[in-house]
Amino acid sequence: MRRFVTSTTAPILSRGVYARNFSSSAATMAKRIETDAFGEIEVDSSRYWGAQTQRSLQNFEIGGDREKLPEPLIRAFGVLKKAAAEVNLTYGLKPEVGEAIKQAAQEVIDGKLTDHFPLVVFQTGSGTQSNMNSNEVISNRAIEILGGELGSKKPVHPNDHVNMSQSSNDTFPTVMHIAAVLEISNKLIPSLEQLHKAVDDKAKEFDHIIKIGRTHLQDATPLTLGQEFSGYAYQIKNGIDRIKDTLPRLRFLAQGGTAVGTGLNTKKGFDAAIAAAVSKITGEEFKTAPNKFEALAAHDAIVEASGALNTVAASLFKIAQDIRYLGSGPRCGYGELNLPENEPGSSIMPGKVNPTQNEALTMVCTQVFGNHSAITFAGASGQFELNVFKPVMISNLLSSIRLLADGARSFRIHCVEGIVANEKRIGQLMRESLMLVTALNPKIGYDSASKVAKNAHKKGITLKESALELGVLTSEEFDEWVRPEKMIGPSDA
Amino acid sequence: MRRFVTSTTAPILSRGVYARNFSSSAATMAKRIETDAFGEIEVDSSRYWGAQTQRSLQNFEIGGDREKLPEPLIRAFGVLKKAAAEVNLTYGLKPEVGEAIKQAAQEVIDGKLTDHFPLVVFQTGSGTQSNMNSNEVISNRAIEILGGELGSKKPVHPNDHVNMSQSSNDTFPTVMHIAAVLEISNKLIPSLEQLHKAVDDKAKEFDHIIKIGRTHLQDATPLTLGQEFSGYAYQIKNGIDRIKDTLPRLRFLAQGGTAVGTGLNTKKGFDAAIAAAVSKITGEEFKTAPNKFEALAAHDAIVEASGALNTVAASLFKIAQDIRYLGSGPRCGYGELNLPENEPGSSIMPGKVNPTQNEALTMVCTQVFGNHSAITFAGASGQFELNVFKPVMISNLLSSIRLLADGARSFRIHCVEGIVANEKRIGQLMRESLMLVTALNPKIGYDSASKVAKNAHKKGITLKESALELGVLTSEEFDEWVRPEKMIGPSDA
Amino acid sequence: MRRFVTSTTAPILSRGVYARNFSSSAATMAKRIETDAFGEIEVDSSRYWGAQTQRSLQNFEIGGDREKLPEPLIRAFGVLKKAAAEVNLTYGLKPEVGEAIKQAAQEVIDGKLTDHFPLVVFQTGSGTQSNMNSNEVISNRAIEILGGELGSKKPVHPNDHVNMSQSSNDTFPTVMHIAAVLEISNKLIPSLEQLHKAVDDKAKEFDHIIKIGRTHLQDATPLTLGQEFSGYAYQIKNGIDRIKDTLPRLRFLAQGGTAVGTGLNTKKGFDAAIAAAVSKITGEEFKTAPNKFEALAAHDAIVEASGALNTVAASLFKIAQDIRYLGSGPRCGYGELNLPENEPGSSIMPGKVNPTQNEALTMVCTQVFGNHSAITFAGASGQFELNVFKPVMISNLLSSIRLLADGARSFRIHCVEGIVANEKRIGQLMRESLMLVTALNPKIGYDSASKVAKNAHKKGITLKESALELGVLTSEEFDEWVRPEKMIGPSDA
Amino acid sequence: MRRFVTSTTAPILSRGVYARNFSSSAATMAKRIETDAFGEIEVDSSRYWGAQTQRSLQNFEIGGDREKLPEPLIRAFGVLKKAAAEVNLTYGLKPEVGEAIKQAAQEVIDGKLTDHFPLVVFQTGSGTQSNMNSNEVISNRAIEILGGELGSKKPVHPNDHVNMSQSSNDTFPTVMHIAAVLEISNKLIPSLEQLHKAVDDKAKEFDHIIKIGRTHLQDATPLTLGQEFSGYAYQIKNGIDRIKDTLPRLRFLAQGGTAVGTGLNTKKGFDAAIAAAVSKITGEEFKTAPNKFEALAAHDAIVEASGALNTVAASLFKIAQDIRYLGSGPRCGYGELNLPENEPGSSIMPGKVNPTQNEALTMVCTQVFGNHSAITFAGASGQFELNVFKPVMISNLLSSIRLLADGARSFRIHCVEGIVANEKRIGQLMRESLMLVTALNPKIGYDSASKVAKNAHKKGITLKESALELGVLTSEEFDEWVRPEKMIGPSDA
Repeated sequence: MRRFVTSTTAPILSRGVYARNFSSSAATMAKRIETDAFGEIEVDSSRYWGAQTQRSLQNFEIGGDREKLPEPLIRAFGVLKKAAAEVNLTYGLKPEVGEAIKQAAQEVIDGKLTDHFPLVVFQTGSGTQSNMNSNEVISNRAIEILGGELGSKKPVHPNDHVNMSQSSNDTFPTVMHIAAVLEISNKLIPSLEQLHKAVDDKAKEFDHIIKIGRTHLQDATPLTLGQEFSGYAYQIKNGIDRIKDTLPRLRFLAQGGTAVGTGLNTKKGFDAAIAAAVSKITGEEFKTAPNKFEALAAHDAIVEASGALNTVAASLFKIAQDIRYLGSGPRCGYGELNLPENEPGSSIMPGKVNPTQNEALTMVCTQVFGNHSAITFAGASGQFELNVFKPVMISNLLSSIRLLADGARSFRIHCVEGIVANEKRIGQLMRESLMLVTALNPKIGYDSASKVAKNAHKKGITLKESALELGVLTSEEFDEWVRPEKMIGPSDA
Repeated sequence: MRRFVTSTTAPILSRGVYARNFSSSAATMAKRIETDAFGEIEVDSSRYWGAQTQRSLQNFEIGGDREKLPEPLIRAFGVLKKAAAEVNLTYGLKPEVGEAIKQAAQEVIDGKLTDHFPLVVFQTGSGTQSNMNSNEVISNRAIEILGGELGSKKPVHPNDHVNMSQSSNDTFPTVMHIAAVLEISNKLIPSLEQLHKAVDDKAKEFDHIIKIGRTHLQDATPLTLGQEFSGYAYQIKNGIDRIKDTLPRLRFLAQGGTAVGTGLNTKKGFDAAIAAAVSKITGEEFKTAPNKFEALAAHDAIVEASGALNTVAASLFKIAQDIRYLGSGPRCGYGELNLPENEPGSSIMPGKVNPTQNEALTMVCTQVFGNHSAITFAGASGQFELNVFKPVMISNLLSSIRLLADGARSFRIHCVEGIVANEKRIGQLMRESLMLVTALNPKIGYDSASKVAKNAHKKGITLKESALELGVLTSEEFDEWVRPEKMIGPSDA
Repeated sequence: MRRFVTSTTAPILSRGVYARNFSSSAATMAKRIETDAFGEIEVDSSRYWGAQTQRSLQNFEIGGDREKLPEPLIRAFGVLKKAAAEVNLTYGLKPEVGEAIKQAAQEVIDGKLTDHFPLVVFQTGSGTQSNMNSNEVISNRAIEILGGELGSKKPVHPNDHVNMSQSSNDTFPTVMHIAAVLEISNKLIPSLEQLHKAVDDKAKEFDHIIKIGRTHLQDATPLTLGQEFSGYAYQIKNGIDRIKDTLPRLRFLAQGGTAVGTGLNTKKGFDAAIAAAVSKITGEEFKTAPNKFEALAAHDAIVEASGALNTVAASLFKIAQDIRYLGSGPRCGYGELNLPENEPGSSIMPGKVNPTQNEALTMVCTQVFGNHSAITFAGASGQFELNVFKPVMISNLLSSIRLLADGARSFRIHCVEGIVANEKRIGQLMRESLMLVTALNPKIGYDSASKVAKNAHKKGITLKESALELGVLTSEEFDEWVRPEKMIGPSDA
Repeated sequence: MRRFVTSTTAPILSRGVYARNFSSSAATMAKRIETDAFGEIEVDSSRYWGAQTQRSLQNFEIGGDREKLPEPLIRAFGVLKKAAAEVNLTYGLKPEVGEAIKQAAQEVIDGKLTDHFPLVVFQTGSGTQSNMNSNEVISNRAIEILGGELGSKKPVHPNDHVNMSQSSNDTFPTVMHIAAVLEISNKLIPSLEQLHKAVDDKAKEFDHIIKIGRTHLQDATPLTLGQEFSGYAYQIKNGIDRIKDTLPRLRFLAQGGTAVGTGLNTKKGFDAAIAAAVSKITGEEFKTAPNKFEALAAHDAIVEASGALNTVAASLFKIAQDIRYLGSGPRCGYGELNLPENEPGSSIMPGKVNPTQNEALTMVCTQVFGNHSAITFAGASGQFELNVFKPVMISNLLSSIRLLADGARSFRIHCVEGIVANEKRIGQLMRESLMLVTALNPKIGYDSASKVAKNAHKKGITLKESALELGVLTSEEFDEWVRPEKMIGPSDA
């Protein structure tokens, strides 16, 4: 017997820390032997993974820890393998084995075994090695639960039992969709909904504040600050709808297509049963993909979802950009908004509040744009029965989802909710504007109004001063006629 | 009177050719004077446009004829201006003037005046100059219809009548949406639907042809050629759905928002009336945008639609790529498909049929990817009450729509519909494949099956030859057990 | 004899206009028969092109006139075919034929035959059809010069004579490089150099104007407006260097590689002789590519050049963006610059000068970003001995070159050269800024200085007012100590 | 005294592990108080960072560990802070303080303190918080070295001493350039040079192997496998040159520009001295940026470098793509190359060697394309005196550098070096090809040759069989005349 550890039902995962601390002292590290079709290979005893995972680690030293497959995908493997065990129990899998697999898979779902998924994005383009990683970890953990010996493949075999009726080619696209749907539903949509509410609340709060409009960056006719924010809110609302519109196609699972989409080595009904089991475990609706060939060979649903995120990023970029300009100053910028001060902007300069949340969010948006380019290129590059850019596609999509979810939340809490309108400044700018002269057209005629504006512009005085100077109206008339609050909507029909 | 032409109801547009032929002899070219707030400017007498168009021509010599605003946008201006005249007739526009505007606008819709829209994409970012171009052309043509003098602005004024209750800031986004919806509905969707049918027909035609599957480009288990094509068909079907899903937000029109979204200078109900009139003229449903601030300041709906086209391009790239590889040869490639020969491939090499339609279509797809990047960047870059990247956004979107529509049609007619399966080659490859050995596992055991495959691979012989050589089964058994047609679907439960 | 036109040395190109005018009346259009390996096909008598061009026109109805191959590429074909004739004269081409080809090719160079190149980008990915287009047009025009019959291929054959020792696979990449180098050298570099000079001149003109700096969009320490513009000038200078750095690899010509890069059917030395002849004709240095396999199968030099243009676009976007913000106002923006007024901004609003040139230029930049994405994708997608995305790559590159050249010129003439600093506003903002308080640290101590700033911020008064109110210094001391002109550079060591 | 740890010169970094293990038991975690302008804040006692780092951690919970600033940037901060201490020692910094800073900074260079840099990319866009992170960590570690109390800022102050004469606005761009140059010089260039050598070695090894060429994926005239690989080698060589061409502008350091580029608060000569010190420490040449305004406000050098990497990615995509197609099979693909088998491809299918290294490398390339899009967008979006997308730009650039370096190395070791030509298959395909018929033109005439080819194609026989069947030559003549080795280069002049 090669393993030094005694068999136990206590998971070795609690020993992970020990292993990590001494990871540099390889000479003294306990090893066990794992095997695959290539033969034997040594694996760190503190790890559940097997031979194929270990080979991938050695063959794909690309990018390091930063490039590990994202955690939501690992958890989705837990979901799938648990679902598969449940379904396979109805197709003849031994109850003892099936139950142990389910228990181990649940630990993957719970994130307890994440450290045992060390593989990077830049591996086999089918994700085969990560599917094997999940098979190996779950089988070894199940073996441990059943009192067996790690690496023995008994009584739980990674291929025969954990991967039963499955192929890497259908499992990996399945977990891509599971992870994407769960992350979108559980993280991104709620975060955007809360941001929408915060912006919409501000729109209502600012409803009475009339300000100068700006088109081409130039002074234009007035609107309310609430109207301006209502545009932002509406962008976010639409963004949520856009993302939701992509979900139906993400809810289709490839599982049951096996190697090339035909479903060879599965039984009829297996595919639908898996989708039902995944739905039950996750609480989200999933269906079996109507066409498995498409589901393996193309990942258009990922490209589509990324396109929706790309649109949301364009929206958020515009919103964050506007707000930081409106908050620019304190003296030499637009200065219409006071943004929350979350950290020292300058040790000596009071009022220098850097719009750091806006900066973080706009950087998030540029990353999402980049991720989308990568996903598009990868999505177009499938070949025959298999797209072999799966890991890079899902990694970028999950990155975009997480960054937008986190970014929107951070921006809401640390910026939007704390925005205060600088009403004094807003009012001053609006009153100084020459654009209000349009209100005088019907009263004193276009030509006179134009002279008033030109005179004010030339001399750097207010419209009112100019009008009085030119003697075209009285002070009272000006105040009665030039009323911005009359300029913020269509007139009665 | 400055104009040499006699007033007439016959349009000068028939003189366009004349003008073009002599365009180099500027000295002798007849001119008239047009005016705007900047003063007088000379315009070629054979053109309907006025001063602001002429200034734009001179101030934006960027890109030349290739970069003119696309024709569908010009026609959409015709639609909008006709609709506006109809609505304005109910708001007090003089019937004579309104009817003349409608007639002139209809000529724009009909493409009769397209030569009078010379402005390029790279102008004012609001498209103001193109809105003025349409106002000027329509008013001059209407003046002509009513027997007036071109350039006189009487009895039809470009601003007061043609642009009545409108602003460039709401007209341009309106025509963006009108043009996009019409091009998508009338050209792109039908073209994709016909392509889908052609591919689906091939899927049915090829339903009986069993071929080798390929994953990682390596020989894999078999499927039918029909199944393979069904995946392509499903991609296209999904693509159509994706595009349709973006239409609801494109059907919202900004008209009625005027300068900054407030609707200043319009009457209540004007916005909805315009949308109704546009719907009536075009036969497509349009609605007034629920939030006009968003409709002017952001063009997320354009980014979103482009994202759908980007996904469709990814699908078509994959399909066209697969088909050209499957048609590679005639001797030294995959050779499973014979593609139609549309032009000489090589003067001496029979059978050298270059997959030129696939090349054109994949080039179209790369252009759509590029257009999408441009649209995304531009869409994110709006400022305050106005996005000033409108012309470049719609130009790229219309380019993508047209290229995909034309590309899909050309690919269907000149490639897909003429594809012939090379059944002899397909059968030969499949029989040579070693992958069929998986069918022997349950019969002779995994170990023996593996030996058969390894022996065949080593010696370069067929599976059957190898099996017989190793004496593990008879020729009859082989023929009975190794039956690809049993391998193309799940087994009965 | 099939042709109705009498043989003549007068070019039919003068009949082009005639043909165009009646292009709709196909029934009455005179036709001649042209032939290729596929057989006979009718061609409009007024056109020089032959059978293969005609087939391409019919097989690739994609995108219409907007998508025709750009003119600089057509002219480059003239250059190449003239050079090839010159070299082939030394390799046995009959003098009479060679000279006629040279004359016809010169007409292509001069743009006289551009209307005879009707093919679009989205054709064969090798550009074969455009190479044949040039062979057909030049041979027919040469036949005409020599008194022969169009379509007869005698005495000048499109393949045997015009295309002698060439293949589409090496001609098209050759003209890609010729066109790119000529357009960059003759249009883009001069335009950027002039823009650099204009911006640099402004930097010098504004050298004495001290203004508030802005970081994070927030008020920061001062600098001169000249320093700010010097940064822009330096960006442009670097951009010119970046583009020039890519020229060496663009100056390599593929000619001589023929079909797959081996140079089959050419003589040793042919490749270098062509490069020398092209250099002589164009006045630009070209060399034969050291590796012809790379030159046909990849277009990395195009991707690289596009990368340089992408960087220049990023620079120009930043510059144009800054300048429009600095010119925002007139009352409610930064207002530090007055931009030239080139067209009416608003009929009633004096001072509303829309930064339309900046808008056009930033739109150009987004287009260049998009073109770069398309080029990158296409450049990565070559296969074996040939990249078949050639037309879309060069079309996008030439688009980027032209748009940047035109955009930079327009921006210089209509914006940069007319920028006037609003010194009054600049001075006012700077004096109002609280950031100058940093100058007081060494005089009154950090704590007191901080109190002065905080008091000023809180009460909305100037630093000086605040300091005097707090009694920490005299008015004279403030004026002596707070001197922005001391804050715009490092101190003496 | 709030800290529980006794002052010591032993670094707390060895306690990092302890802290990590118990990170969930926050209740029992020892804390100390750190302060900044905002006041006090608790920091984990096992960490060197201070108040501003801690605030950033709390304010920017975006992306988690995956999004931490990349390690090469942290090390570059070590380089810069050490260099600054060296220079500041000559400008009056107390020797004891300066030496402690240098020692602590060296530990950052050595990677010993990397765990103390927890901040993510999506923070302040200027990277201020990471600059403060480095100031805080180095000052606390220097305090510890000098026996002081962590958090006391005595005797080493993060701002006054570690950040002396610096600003975040010039330090962050400086470390961006330092990290980029070091990673390119030390990792990427060597990796590409080794890959170039490996491919070039293969080109030489395969020099004698004549194979069928493929254009448009169709059989074409022959070339040697060595020639084909020479094209790949030349692409890589050019790629190395392209990257090197961008280094001169990356070697310019912004340091000395301080807040807005003016160099306020520095002494003349400080900037050049820093560049010299950095050069000495790193062994790479660096110079002070000629224009500091550009160096802070724009990061065109990063966009440019990314453009070079983008080109290299396009090259590698093409190479890896070709090689996997050439290795496709074993029976039903091109099968010209045998790729190394690094892991089980299929448990039962001998010869199913999945091109996993090619898949990893092409995925790397798509990521680099995406990173480039993000960098371009971010690079274009600077504002006035500062680009506030610095962290996202350098993070993406370092990602591209590392992925290309790792990817190229992995591809070389695990794929290229082990490629074996399948000469039997290559020869068989070439002999079957009909394209060799071109060799018969000068012998039996074009018409006869064409008949031979057409007959062979129609009947599916070889050229030789066809020629003999048609009786146009003898077997000996065929063998003498049809010699592919004569077809792989130009003929003698």
